[in-house]
Amino acid sequence: MFDASTTMIERIRAILPQIAANAVQAEGDRMVPKENIELLKATGLHRAFQPRAYGGLELPVPEFENCIALIATACGSTAWAFSLLAEHNHQIALYSRELQDEIWGEDPDTVASSSIAPYGKSVEVEGGVRFSGEFGWSSGCDHAQWAILGFLRDAPEGGKVYSFAILPRADYEIRDTWFTQGMRGTGSKTLVVKDAFVPNHRIESVPALMSLTSAGGHLYPDSKIFHVPFIYVFASCFSSVSLGIAERMIALYTERTQGRVRAYTGAKVGQSIPACMRLAESAHQVAAGRAFLEKTWEDMRDHAERRVFPDAQKMAHWRTNQAYAVKMFVAAVDRLFEASGGSAWFDDAEAQRLFRNSHMTAAHAYTDYDICAQILGRALMGLEPDPSLF
Amino acid sequence: MFDASTTMIERIRAILPQIAANAVQAEGDRMVPKENIELLKATGLHRAFQPRAYGGLELPVPEFENCIALIATACGSTAWAFSLLAEHNHQIALYSRELQDEIWGEDPDTVASSSIAPYGKSVEVEGGVRFSGEFGWSSGCDHAQWAILGFLRDAPEGGKVYSFAILPRADYEIRDTWFTQGMRGTGSKTLVVKDAFVPNHRIESVPALMSLTSAGGHLYPDSKIFHVPFIYVFASCFSSVSLGIAERMIALYTERTQGRVRAYTGAKVGQSIPACMRLAESAHQVAAGRAFLEKTWEDMRDHAERRVFPDAQKMAHWRTNQAYAVKMFVAAVDRLFEASGGSAWFDDAEAQRLFRNSHMTAAHAYTDYDICAQILGRALMGLEPDPSLF
Amino acid sequence: MFDASTTMIERIRAILPQIAANAVQAEGDRMVPKENIELLKATGLHRAFQPRAYGGLELPVPEFENCIALIATACGSTAWAFSLLAEHNHQIALYSRELQDEIWGEDPDTVASSSIAPYGKSVEVEGGVRFSGEFGWSSGCDHAQWAILGFLRDAPEGGKVYSFAILPRADYEIRDTWFTQGMRGTGSKTLVVKDAFVPNHRIESVPALMSLTSAGGHLYPDSKIFHVPFIYVFASCFSSVSLGIAERMIALYTERTQGRVRAYTGAKVGQSIPACMRLAESAHQVAAGRAFLEKTWEDMRDHAERRVFPDAQKMAHWRTNQAYAVKMFVAAVDRLFEASGGSAWFDDAEAQRLFRNSHMTAAHAYTDYDICAQILGRALMGLEPDPSLF
Amino acid sequence: MFDASTTMIERIRAILPQIAANAVQAEGDRMVPKENIELLKATGLHRAFQPRAYGGLELPVPEFENCIALIATACGSTAWAFSLLAEHNHQIALYSRELQDEIWGEDPDTVASSSIAPYGKSVEVEGGVRFSGEFGWSSGCDHAQWAILGFLRDAPEGGKVYSFAILPRADYEIRDTWFTQGMRGTGSKTLVVKDAFVPNHRIESVPALMSLTSAGGHLYPDSKIFHVPFIYVFASCFSSVSLGIAERMIALYTERTQGRVRAYTGAKVGQSIPACMRLAESAHQVAAGRAFLEKTWEDMRDHAERRVFPDAQKMAHWRTNQAYAVKMFVAAVDRLFEASGGSAWFDDAEAQRLFRNSHMTAAHAYTDYDICAQILGRALMGLEPDPSLF
Repeated sequence: MFDASTTMIERIRAILPQIAANAVQAEGDRMVPKENIELLKATGLHRAFQPRAYGGLELPVPEFENCIALIATACGSTAWAFSLLAEHNHQIALYSRELQDEIWGEDPDTVASSSIAPYGKSVEVEGGVRFSGEFGWSSGCDHAQWAILGFLRDAPEGGKVYSFAILPRADYEIRDTWFTQGMRGTGSKTLVVKDAFVPNHRIESVPALMSLTSAGGHLYPDSKIFHVPFIYVFASCFSSVSLGIAERMIALYTERTQGRVRAYTGAKVGQSIPACMRLAESAHQVAAGRAFLEKTWEDMRDHAERRVFPDAQKMAHWRTNQAYAVKMFVAAVDRLFEASGGSAWFDDAEAQRLFRNSHMTAAHAYTDYDICAQILGRALMGLEPDPSLF
Repeated sequence: MFDASTTMIERIRAILPQIAANAVQAEGDRMVPKENIELLKATGLHRAFQPRAYGGLELPVPEFENCIALIATACGSTAWAFSLLAEHNHQIALYSRELQDEIWGEDPDTVASSSIAPYGKSVEVEGGVRFSGEFGWSSGCDHAQWAILGFLRDAPEGGKVYSFAILPRADYEIRDTWFTQGMRGTGSKTLVVKDAFVPNHRIESVPALMSLTSAGGHLYPDSKIFHVPFIYVFASCFSSVSLGIAERMIALYTERTQGRVRAYTGAKVGQSIPACMRLAESAHQVAAGRAFLEKTWEDMRDHAERRVFPDAQKMAHWRTNQAYAVKMFVAAVDRLFEASGGSAWFDDAEAQRLFRNSHMTAAHAYTDYDICAQILGRALMGLEPDPSLF
Repeated sequence: MFDASTTMIERIRAILPQIAANAVQAEGDRMVPKENIELLKATGLHRAFQPRAYGGLELPVPEFENCIALIATACGSTAWAFSLLAEHNHQIALYSRELQDEIWGEDPDTVASSSIAPYGKSVEVEGGVRFSGEFGWSSGCDHAQWAILGFLRDAPEGGKVYSFAILPRADYEIRDTWFTQGMRGTGSKTLVVKDAFVPNHRIESVPALMSLTSAGGHLYPDSKIFHVPFIYVFASCFSSVSLGIAERMIALYTERTQGRVRAYTGAKVGQSIPACMRLAESAHQVAAGRAFLEKTWEDMRDHAERRVFPDAQKMAHWRTNQAYAVKMFVAAVDRLFEASGGSAWFDDAEAQRLFRNSHMTAAHAYTDYDICAQILGRALMGLEPDPSLF
Repeated sequence: MFDASTTMIERIRAILPQIAANAVQAEGDRMVPKENIELLKATGLHRAFQPRAYGGLELPVPEFENCIALIATACGSTAWAFSLLAEHNHQIALYSRELQDEIWGEDPDTVASSSIAPYGKSVEVEGGVRFSGEFGWSSGCDHAQWAILGFLRDAPEGGKVYSFAILPRADYEIRDTWFTQGMRGTGSKTLVVKDAFVPNHRIESVPALMSLTSAGGHLYPDSKIFHVPFIYVFASCFSSVSLGIAERMIALYTERTQGRVRAYTGAKVGQSIPACMRLAESAHQVAAGRAFLEKTWEDMRDHAERRVFPDAQKMAHWRTNQAYAVKMFVAAVDRLFEASGGSAWFDDAEAQRLFRNSHMTAAHAYTDYDICAQILGRALMGLEPDPSLF
């Protein structure tokens, strides 16, 4: 569909109108429409973080996140779910070669969904664990062939260690529990695992993944992307979606306001000074938030390319900058939506969808600013990390 | 159902559990459930502003608004629609005795809905006007027998004068257009009038209504409620609903947070300092907003009882204080909702309904703070009123 | 100077121009001008909380606080220092009759300053303690004859109990340490005590004072003011000062803006929509904050008159509502000051003094909103009080 | 003092301790200390925008602004005044070669102060104008040998055109009027001109300067800095100062808070969760504001280097982004200062100086956000520029 000279952002731009046209359907179906996945797979974006060894692109973080933000201007739910499907490849690349072959060997377009809160129950057995549990919030699961699931594994030396198991589609069922008022199109349903065997080569602990000491931690020594701990790339997705939504809100508000007339007085809203000032302040806020994200993305790219492991304050910033940016984007969207009048609340008004989706980008555990402010604040104040904050 | 010794607020409290139980149905039906209307009519609250001559209660503003806020803790949509149905009686009491007899003569429980933006088209004929138009946003119209509709009437001296015509149910149809993401249960559908004749005794101009020089402006000289221009009572409803929603959000957040555990870490949110601080700040903010409204209500009551007509700055405050209070309530709800986690977004979570409804209380033309800030700011700065701001 | 028919607020209004005229001098002298104290003593306001047994007024809280707010429109520093001098009489009224006679027996106009952080060092001796320490922040000390000083006293049963000793002027020196950028006129200097003997009848513990079980806790059973724990009245002073400053800022901004012209363009700021909107929003915010304080004051008056001891949540509100109101007032002042241009920063511009003093009303330990939000939040969430928050 | 291999930022870092040590003196003297000017001139930074033809550096905007921000961490007043002195060279480079020779011919270290509001009175005479007026706000004038002064010149075709005359030190007197509560050390005194003759080669109109059609508009075709209209570089100074102040506040708050103990309770503030969260939020906000400025600076550099003239929206952003960033910095400083306690208000506490200076960076006509929001909002909404907004 695209020739090699077409940049990724150009490819996304080409399919954007169709993604936008499907946005209402995504909400109605409560999952990403199949067509969107096909269009996006045609661009190759899902292979952004797949190792080159499997034909992946190994795109730099800034290029990837810009694409996600652009998709979100058309459909926030699609951007959310697809960005996670794509990003999980970064995580898979840190597992054993054996697992990577299982996943990508036959079909390199294969992707995984996830549910990372440690809700799994495991029993240690020869060569692995018996694994069970119910895992909500698995965005894009309808379009994935594998699932990455969190649990607290019994450590050999006693205690528990936060770990992720990766299971094939045959080992879990999807339960449709995704009835929400925001991000409806992400299809973030519940995965149910009943006593599946998970061999050790499909399991890694979070500390190993974070410190690049997992089975695949050094499989790709020449890569320019895998040196940054995957969790910071994972954490970046939500804010990129939030950015795209906010940028779309600015464009939509401008269009709508230019033509809007007040019901009671016939006054033209587009010439109203407060309407212009709201637009300006939100435009500034979103531009500042974008600049903040871009600088953070560049910093990750730089560390990855130079193979410099980030220090504690740097990691605290990477973990939390995105949540602060999301706060900015939500505030920018609110400022415009609250001046959009009652008509913006109708089902067929795009503005209300942007409003709902924008707020929900701030409701993920990773974008919870109370948590993030504590993480960064403690790091800057020189206190020990608080393990209850993740 | 209630004996005379039961105060109105006690009556409301008695039916509150049933109103709350019907809140989900109200959203599904996209109108106030019939049972709610019956329960509320049994309390007599709809007759708060009906003249005593027709058996009405002539309740003081503070008592009425407190009841509306209480209803809104159970169902914001019901409170919104019912408060308007009730308040319109204040307006009807300013019309001719003839119209009042038509409306309340046979059934004193009769109520009217409205749509006050001047969208009607009229042609002057002998004894009245021929009247047509489509009027959206008529909250509670399914439960009303009359409708109050806005239009710009040709003035005898030339020009147009903003007026309200009151039409019986037979003269208009209800078109179901109420498909929204907020206040779904208000059933604020569209009224369609096709060339109906409206006699003059069913029409009054806004200036006459505001200055108490309409046909019924002095019918009830001993009343302690009708001396305050009706529009300020009308304007009070939205903020009372917003107050009730916010007070419910505080209670709900407290309950939910006391039992909430973080997915990733198992940390108890109820012992989290940021969670407590958010609760405190919203509790302060809502309490301050309530105190502000109560003082404004008392001021209206005082003017009405002493028959003192408010001066320009006072009217600017009455028109706008409620919009500032709504800003406070929405901010208080946001602060709690944004710390409620993704689970608060599910369809069956009350929190998301409160969030949506709270924001929509700020989307009415009367609660638009950009407009209100200009109205009050001009008045305080000593500038002439701007007619494009109403 | 005033006859009995003149209300206290009228008396304050009468002396207000002279207080205002002395405001610059107060800053220069870094203490309340002697003339201000004489004028205020002539009104009798310092005797608001003095028992009637000594000729005091036993004014209700709302009346007192309204006077303080009014004084603060003329000079925030004078209002701050004088309100504390006056309020301390409430505290003295809870001590032994013997001490009250010592203080008011000869001169019932005598007042005390304080420094309540527990910085005193004490050694138990026969009949009392030997007492030493340096105590900063003693507002109005130049005009006081006694000082109330905090320390942790050795409890007979072991441990320490937070207590206040009251010392006569001869037992301490004033060290001039009051070199600040805000509230310069309060003269909140340092009191130095070197090994003074303080007899037991001049010492009470905070728990005894709070629970009305101190030596004088029940001396005035018919009083309508002493039943409310003194600390909540003490806490009210700061917010009343903040209120007055904010109300003055609104008036000043209105005057200045009506005549202001932009340097670069000659545009008239008074007709600027943003200038009007800022004025409106601050006017709303201050009016809402005032309503919140008034309701809190009335609640205290009501409890005092009915002799109902407040429950834990009520006390948490009384302790903290004032801090929330101060936040509102500071925000309102900032909104206006930041639109007042560079000329507002000159030494002879009243606006900058209001700005500095307003911010400093939020810097007292009692108005620290981080502390207050935790106190109220814990109370509402049902957690135990945290003793590190006072 | 510095050899060629030392970068400009390293040079600034080297003199920073001495600049910081002089900060209190700067406030007391109400002007930049002579030593600071000498130290800074030794770095060569004042020649950042001087044409290479006169030995200037032609530094890119980002490099210059980073130096200003760094200076402001030590002394905001010095950074403010010096940045303007340096930036004016950009403007002078747009005047006639004749004037440039007059200014830099003998002493290439010569700098000019300015006062650009159009307060001058002029009478057209042969070869120039007779010029008079009083011009306030001339930051750094004590250290300048020339002054750039605004006036509305009679246009040959009728009407007035906003213009700047440049006068030598002999043609004006300095009147010491700089008695303020913020940025005291800038020495922004008043320049008084009495009927001086200003020849035409020392006068240019703003439109000509902005469109690079002034006498010197194309003197340096190979320059990589002069293609950006000077006003956007001028506008950048204030925000760079504000950035530096905010960054210093973060460092200072961290230090102070780590050691701070609450007076009443002995609680350690540095382990307080709210204290950490405030630090984090301000750190995020300042980092985001910095990223926004850096991106804007890079954009200017890019346009200048590529000689692309900015379009209307771009210019609106360059004019206003800096004011939005200043809002962010002031908010960040406030958040920390208001949690710094009363002790931060003492004359010898650096925090209060940062607080005052930070707020004053938002009080310049160029950082007035009400103006800026209108400028950008109109541009984005597609309205014509409003000439009353400059």
